[in-house]
Amino acid sequence: MLNIEDIEKAKERINNYVNKTPVLSSSLLNEWIGHEIFFKAECLQKIGAFKARGACNAISWLIENNEKPKKVIANSSGNHAQAVAWAARQFNIPATIYMPAYASKIKIQATNAYGAQIELCENRNVADEKVKQASQEKGTCWIPPFNHNQVIAGQGTAIYEALNQVSDIDAVFAPCGGGGLLSGTLIATRSLSPATKVIGAEPLNANDAAQSLRMNAIQKLSSVPDTIADGAMTMAVGDITFEYLKMLDDMYEIEESKIIYWTQWLTHLLKLQVEPTSATAMDAVAQWLKNQKTKKRVMVILSGGNIDQTTQLTLWNNNYLTFRPNT
Amino acid sequence: MLNIEDIEKAKERINNYVNKTPVLSSSLLNEWIGHEIFFKAECLQKIGAFKARGACNAISWLIENNEKPKKVIANSSGNHAQAVAWAARQFNIPATIYMPAYASKIKIQATNAYGAQIELCENRNVADEKVKQASQEKGTCWIPPFNHNQVIAGQGTAIYEALNQVSDIDAVFAPCGGGGLLSGTLIATRSLSPATKVIGAEPLNANDAAQSLRMNAIQKLSSVPDTIADGAMTMAVGDITFEYLKMLDDMYEIEESKIIYWTQWLTHLLKLQVEPTSATAMDAVAQWLKNQKTKKRVMVILSGGNIDQTTQLTLWNNNYLTFRPNT
Repeated sequence: MLNIEDIEKAKERINNYVNKTPVLSSSLLNEWIGHEIFFKAECLQKIGAFKARGACNAISWLIENNEKPKKVIANSSGNHAQAVAWAARQFNIPATIYMPAYASKIKIQATNAYGAQIELCENRNVADEKVKQASQEKGTCWIPPFNHNQVIAGQGTAIYEALNQVSDIDAVFAPCGGGGLLSGTLIATRSLSPATKVIGAEPLNANDAAQSLRMNAIQKLSSVPDTIADGAMTMAVGDITFEYLKMLDDMYEIEESKIIYWTQWLTHLLKLQVEPTSATAMDAVAQWLKNQKTKKRVMVILSGGNIDQTTQLTLWNNNYLTFRPNT
Repeated sequence: MLNIEDIEKAKERINNYVNKTPVLSSSLLNEWIGHEIFFKAECLQKIGAFKARGACNAISWLIENNEKPKKVIANSSGNHAQAVAWAARQFNIPATIYMPAYASKIKIQATNAYGAQIELCENRNVADEKVKQASQEKGTCWIPPFNHNQVIAGQGTAIYEALNQVSDIDAVFAPCGGGGLLSGTLIATRSLSPATKVIGAEPLNANDAAQSLRMNAIQKLSSVPDTIADGAMTMAVGDITFEYLKMLDDMYEIEESKIIYWTQWLTHLLKLQVEPTSATAMDAVAQWLKNQKTKKRVMVILSGGNIDQTTQLTLWNNNYLTFRPNT
């Protein structure tokens, strides 16, 4: 299993490429909730999400090991696509990203803007098949979105930084898609601050991780889940990430209305573009804090800030800003 | 007239209260436009807008001159209301804000959250009348939104900071409501960097400043303007600010669709909540850069980030993110 040295080495590798994102807080929110909540703003990371860390580490680890690929490939319709495109460009490696044709135009456009070639596929299964085929080619390296040691080590650098920016944190919270961010977060936190709880959150409508933890075996969703948190739509966690997820202190399952509620409020209070996926972690914070008897200091990883126009319309359809957060 | 020392003194006064906001840029946008564009992110300022600077300076200037008021009052339905409420609280002075009853709930709530008493009035005229009456009371100080030397000096600290954060700026751009931000920006820029152009922008639908400059006399809008840029809905500039506005290098009048276009794109590229009012300045940048023959470095003041839910719905009704900015 990975340890803190893997994360420290990842940090050294990616330091010159990624942003050291700020840790922010809202004095109004803290006053209303009665605790101290810190936000690691990975929405201000390169490509607008923590995914830049893992992709960058995976590629530079290959280079460090004299295995610089002639080409990198990935299959994704989301932030991982942009992350691999961006990271490949940092090292002047051509990249091809296999995306389902129904992926949002803006994400295709952004991936393309980072210089990657885009292969639009009929659907997700076709993309998965094509990337597998392409990976057989000599010199081609397939960078998976989460179930990969160097991707996990890269994602762990976010909380590694955050715990050095703010001390005495009682609990850290991060959203769960495939579990890469949470796995890295767990490894770093257990080592840097063993008493700190590490807690995950995922949409109730995409609760494969929570189900898997209950069954003690990886469960796969039977169909594409209906959730606004597009970063957490992953059908199943990976065999590598699952081993780390088992060590979490808790995993919350969040209702859609709560995801929208916190997306609106975090946007409003922090003046940041906050992905719905990140808001799942904030609702977990609110639930967890309600059961605490003493004042706590918690850290939330705001995983990303990429939101397309149709999602914005759904997000702002109802007004949750008239119901202010409280204890 | 005010000079650079007034702004330097304002900066000293407010330094411990306001945020030193970051200057950000988007490498994608710079690549697409072919110039270097820097953003002074006043949306990350206290209360979510540059207005905190002016209100804070006006109150601390009074205290410095042994005129600490027993009470401060203001009439506003927008960011100035929150700014005065917040600033008064920093100095433990009670504040009353006169707001029209139709002001957005979220702005009333925020002003209230900073500890101010809210007086809801039938309409704007009634609020204006009531604040005038209340200002007669001994020890009560009325803080106007823009037509006030210490408010202007405070607003000027934003560009003062920015020009010390990034050098060699060819032109600075700021939106125009009542002209307080632009006046302060002009004073600071002319002194710190005399060759730098200072350019304003306002909605075409609320172009009282441009009309006033053309007529060389202050023009008042005949009715409340129909614009999404609520920070620029002011009916007329002030006699103090007008004298500074006359010295601007240009004033652009921006169409509504362009305001929405740039609000969407700046939000998307910077991952910040950007008020439509701020986007007016960005369209002026785009227009100005089209006529430049050499590569330029420009600074845009992102004036604020307070957007209510109904404005969000209007903002995201159409998808402008499929039309990417270019030269």
